[in-house]
Amino acid sequence: MERARGNSAKTGDSLAKMPQKIKNLSAVFNPSSIAVIGASREPNKIGHVIVKNFIDGGFGGKVYPINPNAEEILGLKSYKSVLDIREKVDCAVIAVPAAAVPEVLEECGKKGVKAVVLITGGFSEVGKMEEEKRVAAIANKYGIALIGPNCMGVLTPASRVDSVFLPIYKLGRPRVGGISFISQSGAVGGCIVDLAARAGIGMSKFVSYGNAAVIDECDLLEYFASDKETQIIVVYLEGVRDGRRFLEIAKKITRKKPVVVLKAGRSAAGAEAARSHTGSLSGASEAYKAAFRQAEVIEAATLEQLFDFAKIFDQVLPCGKRIGIITNGGGMGVLATDSIEDEGLALADISGEASQALRLTLPPYANVRNPLDIIGDADSHRYEVALNAFLKEENVDVILLIILFQTVAIDSSVVNIAIRASDTQKKPIIAVCTGGEYTEMHKRILESYGVPTYASPSSAMRAISRFVKYAEHYSKYNNTACPAPIKKQK
Amino acid sequence: MERARGNSAKTGDSLAKMPQKIKNLSAVFNPSSIAVIGASREPNKIGHVIVKNFIDGGFGGKVYPINPNAEEILGLKSYKSVLDIREKVDCAVIAVPAAAVPEVLEECGKKGVKAVVLITGGFSEVGKMEEEKRVAAIANKYGIALIGPNCMGVLTPASRVDSVFLPIYKLGRPRVGGISFISQSGAVGGCIVDLAARAGIGMSKFVSYGNAAVIDECDLLEYFASDKETQIIVVYLEGVRDGRRFLEIAKKITRKKPVVVLKAGRSAAGAEAARSHTGSLSGASEAYKAAFRQAEVIEAATLEQLFDFAKIFDQVLPCGKRIGIITNGGGMGVLATDSIEDEGLALADISGEASQALRLTLPPYANVRNPLDIIGDADSHRYEVALNAFLKEENVDVILLIILFQTVAIDSSVVNIAIRASDTQKKPIIAVCTGGEYTEMHKRILESYGVPTYASPSSAMRAISRFVKYAEHYSKYNNTACPAPIKKQK
Repeated sequence: MERARGNSAKTGDSLAKMPQKIKNLSAVFNPSSIAVIGASREPNKIGHVIVKNFIDGGFGGKVYPINPNAEEILGLKSYKSVLDIREKVDCAVIAVPAAAVPEVLEECGKKGVKAVVLITGGFSEVGKMEEEKRVAAIANKYGIALIGPNCMGVLTPASRVDSVFLPIYKLGRPRVGGISFISQSGAVGGCIVDLAARAGIGMSKFVSYGNAAVIDECDLLEYFASDKETQIIVVYLEGVRDGRRFLEIAKKITRKKPVVVLKAGRSAAGAEAARSHTGSLSGASEAYKAAFRQAEVIEAATLEQLFDFAKIFDQVLPCGKRIGIITNGGGMGVLATDSIEDEGLALADISGEASQALRLTLPPYANVRNPLDIIGDADSHRYEVALNAFLKEENVDVILLIILFQTVAIDSSVVNIAIRASDTQKKPIIAVCTGGEYTEMHKRILESYGVPTYASPSSAMRAISRFVKYAEHYSKYNNTACPAPIKKQK
Repeated sequence: MERARGNSAKTGDSLAKMPQKIKNLSAVFNPSSIAVIGASREPNKIGHVIVKNFIDGGFGGKVYPINPNAEEILGLKSYKSVLDIREKVDCAVIAVPAAAVPEVLEECGKKGVKAVVLITGGFSEVGKMEEEKRVAAIANKYGIALIGPNCMGVLTPASRVDSVFLPIYKLGRPRVGGISFISQSGAVGGCIVDLAARAGIGMSKFVSYGNAAVIDECDLLEYFASDKETQIIVVYLEGVRDGRRFLEIAKKITRKKPVVVLKAGRSAAGAEAARSHTGSLSGASEAYKAAFRQAEVIEAATLEQLFDFAKIFDQVLPCGKRIGIITNGGGMGVLATDSIEDEGLALADISGEASQALRLTLPPYANVRNPLDIIGDADSHRYEVALNAFLKEENVDVILLIILFQTVAIDSSVVNIAIRASDTQKKPIIAVCTGGEYTEMHKRILESYGVPTYASPSSAMRAISRFVKYAEHYSKYNNTACPAPIKKQK
C-alpha cells in the first residue's frame, strides 16, 4: 500500500524542456489506449499473453488487438492495422517477427502513436545491426519513444500497464510503490521484480530496455528524474552508451532522488561475458566506480545489495548516523553492534531521558543500554515502550528494530506497533527479522507498509550506511527540516 | 531427505577415550528414555510444551513426566520424582524454578540419569554465580552431561528428540541432515534452525548450550567430531572459555570435517554487548581470526554466510577451482563471472570436448563459451545437455547452475535433472535461483535433495571459494580419490 508522504515533487527538469522522444515516454508508462501488434488467439503465443495481461490486470484504458487474420481476440474487436483504428492510440506493444517490424512501425508513425514497446528480438544482439538502425530511423522520424527491441516489456503497477510477457504465477507483479527500475538485462530485471512482488516491496515503474535502439538508460534516467511518482531510481547496467551524459544526469538527479546502480561486467572476464550478452562495452571498472562516486550514485556490489539499498528509502531520511538497537534476542544485538563498526556508523548514547523512561517500565532483569535487549519474554507492549523511548531520545538518529518472531510472547500485534511508529515519520525505523514461514509472513506485512525489513543485522546496517550517506548529500542541496521524507506524492 | 554417500566414517577420536560427561552426551541426543522434570498440565507452561513435543514429534523412546502434584499429564503417568521411576532414565529435561534445581538434579544423579538439559534460567546470566557453581558441582559429582542452564534445548531430527520449547508454527524443525549446530545464543540458534527448516536444509543435531556450566563448546566439538551422523559442524560463538583447547580440537576436526564459525563480539562495542549478554569475554578479534585461520576453521562474517557456507558441503568436494557456469539469463552469467574474480576462483576453459558436444545440440544462436548462456528459451532438455557436457569436461571442477524459473520454457522437470546430475557425485553442482514464490518452491526442492541453492551468483561464489579452499585442506590429510564426498554415512 502506498501512503501519501509530504508535499508535491519539485524534482529534475520539467518534461516540457525535454526532447520529444523523452516526453513521449509518458505514453509508455501511462497510455490511455494501447495497441498490441501481433496479438494472437493462441494461448501460448506472446501476443496472446500480452493482451490477456492488459485485460486481466484491469488496465483502465482501451486495448486494440492487431492481427490481420482475426476478427476478435479475447472478446475484443481485432484490427488489421493500427491505421484501421479510428480512435487515438497512445502506445503500441509490438510482438511480430523481426522482418515485419519496419512496416508495422511505419504504420504506428503514420497513426501518431507516441510510444512503442518492441518485444521482438533478432536485431543487434544477433549481429543484425543494419536492421536495428532501420527500426531506429523510423522511430526517430516520427519522434516515437521506442523501448527495445529485444526487451521483456514494461510495468506500471498504478495504471496496470503490463507488457511483461511472462506468466504471473512464475513472475509476480509488485504493489504500487516509489521505486522505478531500469534494467538492461530482462532476466536480471525479471528476478528483481519477482523478488519485490514476493517481499511486499512496491514499484512505480519497471522497464527492460533491451538493445536500446532509441531510448537508452540516460533517456530513462531523465524521464524518471521528473516523474513525480518515482522516488527512488534503481538501475541494472552492463554498459553505458554515453558515459559523460550518464554522469551529468546522475549528478543532477541524486540531489533530489537516490539512484542505486548495480554495474555488471566489472571484471575482465565479466566484461567479456557482457560483450557477448548485450554487446555492451563495459569499460574500465575503476572509471565507473569513480563516476558513480562523483555523481553520489549508490553502488550495489550484488543483487542482494541492489534490493537492500533501494528499499530503505521508504523511510524518512536520517539526521545522523547514531543507531539505537532494540532486540528481543541478545545475540542479534551483539551482531548488530559488530556491524555498526564495520559500516562506520555509531552506537547511540541512550543515557539520557530515554534511559530513565525505560528503567521505569522494563523488567528489572533488562539492562537499559544500547543495544537495548528487551529480553526473550518481551511482548508487543514492551516493544512499544522501547520504540517510544527511542523516538523521543535525541541521541538516536536511526532505530534498528530486531524482532525474533519465534518467541512465545511475540504475536502479530508487534507489527502494528512497528508500522504505527514508522508512520509518525519522526525517525527511520529499519527492521531485522530472521527465520522461517511465520517470520516471512510478518516481514511481508512490514514491507507492504513501508518498513524495510532485513534478514540479518549486517545486511540492515550496510543499507543504513548508504542511507545515512545519501541523507548527508541530500541535505546539502535541499532546505528541508530534518528528518526529511524523500517520498513526495502527487 | 538424506541419501547414503560413500563409506563409513573414521573421524575424530573414538568416544571410548573421552571423559564420562562427553560420552554421556549421547544420552542428550539419542536417549531411549526421557524424564521431563517440571512437566505441567497447563498448555502455556514450558513443562507442558516439552512433553507435548516429545509425544507429537513421534519420539520412539519412553517419556516420563515428573510433577509432584499430578497423576497424569497428556495421557502419560506422572511421577513425583525421577527416583519413583522403576525403569532406566537416560536423560532429563529440567524446567523447574531455579531454586528447585539442585534438589531435582541430585535426584537425577542418584537415579543414574546420564544427561540433563537444564532449560531453567536465573543463574550466572543474572549474576548468580554461586548457584550455578553448585549445580555444576552436582552434575560433575555424578558425571552427568549437563547442557545449560539458561538454554533453549536440543534437537535431534533423526530420533525426534525435541526439547526446544518454542512452538513449531513459529520455529520450524528441519529435516534430517548432516549439519550439527552449536549455538551459544538461543535466539540466534533458533533463527538459524527456523531458516534451515523453511529452506529445506537438513540437520543432524542442534544444541543451544546457554551458560555452559558443565558442557561447553569444546566438549560439544569433541562429541561431534566422533559423531558419525555429523558431517559438518556449525558454531555460533560469543566467547570461548579455553582458547587453546578450542584451537587444538578444531585443528584436529577440520582434517576430517568442516567447521564453520560465526564469532560475534568482534568489535569493541560488540564485545561489550556480548559481555552483558552471555557474560562472555569475547577477547581480541585478531586473536580469534588468527586461531581460526590456523585451525582451518571456515569463518563466517554474517548470519547469511554461516548458512551459505554450511550448506554447500552437501555436495562432493571439488577437485579444483575452475568454475563452469550454465545460465538461461545472460545478465546472471555476467554477474557470476564478476564474482569469480572477486573470490579468487577461475573461469573454466570449455574449448575441448564439451564445446563440440554443445555446438551440436544447442541452437545456433547460443554462444558456446563459459559462462554458457543457453538462452531464455531453454527448456529442461537443454539444461540436461549442458549439465552432461560440463560433467564430462575435464576442465570444469565445479558447476554453477543458474536457473531462472520465470521463463515460459522452464518447468519443474529441470529440478529432477539437477538432482539426478548431483546424485552422480561426479562434481559439485551449486544452484542459483533468484525470484519469488514459484522460484522459492523449486529452491526448497533442490535443497531438500542436497543441491545447495543461492539467491545470487555472488553469494554462491563466496561459498564456493570456502568450499574449494576446504577441499584443498581436506585432501592434504585424506587419501581419497577426487572428488571426495565428505558425507560419510553409518
